Amino acid sequence: MKRPNISRNVIRRLPRYLRKLDELSAAGVERISSSEFGTKLGFTPSQIRQDLSCFGEFGQQGYGYNVARLRAEIAHILGADRSYSIILVGTGRIGQSLIENINFSRLGFRLLGAFDIRPELIGRQIGEITVQDAAMVHEFIRENGVDIAILSTNRDQAQSVAEGLIASGIHAIWNFTEMELDPGQSGVVVKGIHFSDSLLELSYFLSEAN
Amino acid sequence: MKRPNISRNVIRRLPRYLRKLDELSAAGVERISSSEFGTKLGFTPSQIRQDLSCFGEFGQQGYGYNVARLRAEIAHILGADRSYSIILVGTGRIGQSLIENINFSRLGFRLLGAFDIRPELIGRQIGEITVQDAAMVHEFIRENGVDIAILSTNRDQAQSVAEGLIASGIHAIWNFTEMELDPGQSGVVVKGIHFSDSLLELSYFLSEAN
Repeated sequence: MKRPNISRNVIRRLPRYLRKLDELSAAGVERISSSEFGTKLGFTPSQIRQDLSCFGEFGQQGYGYNVARLRAEIAHILGADRSYSIILVGTGRIGQSLIENINFSRLGFRLLGAFDIRPELIGRQIGEITVQDAAMVHEFIRENGVDIAILSTNRDQAQSVAEGLIASGIHAIWNFTEMELDPGQSGVVVKGIHFSDSLLELSYFLSEAN
Repeated sequence: MKRPNISRNVIRRLPRYLRKLDELSAAGVERISSSEFGTKLGFTPSQIRQDLSCFGEFGQQGYGYNVARLRAEIAHILGADRSYSIILVGTGRIGQSLIENINFSRLGFRLLGAFDIRPELIGRQIGEITVQDAAMVHEFIRENGVDIAILSTNRDQAQSVAEGLIASGIHAIWNFTEMELDPGQSGVVVKGIHFSDSLLELSYFLSEAN
């Protein structure tokens, strides 16, 4: 489904909504008013109503939001109910810690495998995943119709590895290499976490505060 | 200096500007038009002019931007010319990889130390840093007037460690624990990287594309 004109800022806030709704659900809360929900998130009730109104009508005047239903709707908007398949390429420290710390299945994803070119890392166990030879990754993507590749190789290899993944039919790359990847004309979704950008944002707010 | 009403989106884009300017500078480029700069960043020239106009006049009609001067101005806006001091608390995989992969001094920061509570990790060398006993961190912050703490402990310890750092006089926390930290009334700047939020954003764009 195409939903044009949704602002990036709304999209950025939705995962936080999802986390809060998971917490509420775990605490046994079944419904919540937009003002209570706002307090928990540090947003105004009107911002929440405005954000959610981009996608349809979720709340009910005088009732508030049904936690389970809103959770399901936001998960749907975020594609977290599609059971996207994921592999990880590059099992250095960052790659390992992603496998160990992210609860992919709870978020709605399936982590299918991890790959590395370093012989000493191939065969190693990280959580429930056994590291495979990166030479097998293209066949693996084709056979399993993998949706998303986490790219956590060295910087130098980032672009060439990305091109190989794209050629094999991957649909999205979650990029941890701190290199800007060029997906060419492929239409592949690329989203990166730039650690240094985040540090500089923090630094901006620190220098504004002093 | 206070600059009210600068949108978060502009702040988010500035570190990318800085990276591109570093690349241009390394390639020997001394000046660049807003349209060339836009092409390199994937932005329109008018967006670039609009972003930068929030902070004053940097470009000159018919000349473009002086790369070195614009780089220095953006670094200044981001507080990257203040030589902020940083420590890291929690030297697990994420913590180690941050020390190894981020060039703090090139970004304009001073990494002063790393701390852990685990006896087997204390005394270990990570790059040029020797891991110290976390019992010493409060004294270290006070003696060195540390500005920023990178928090990369376990989730369970995140809030209590953060409170200790705040009580010791830290000014900002860069949070890698995936826990939402409450800085209370301290005024401490907290910025987190939520890996799962980033994955869900990617998933949103993937589901929109299909």
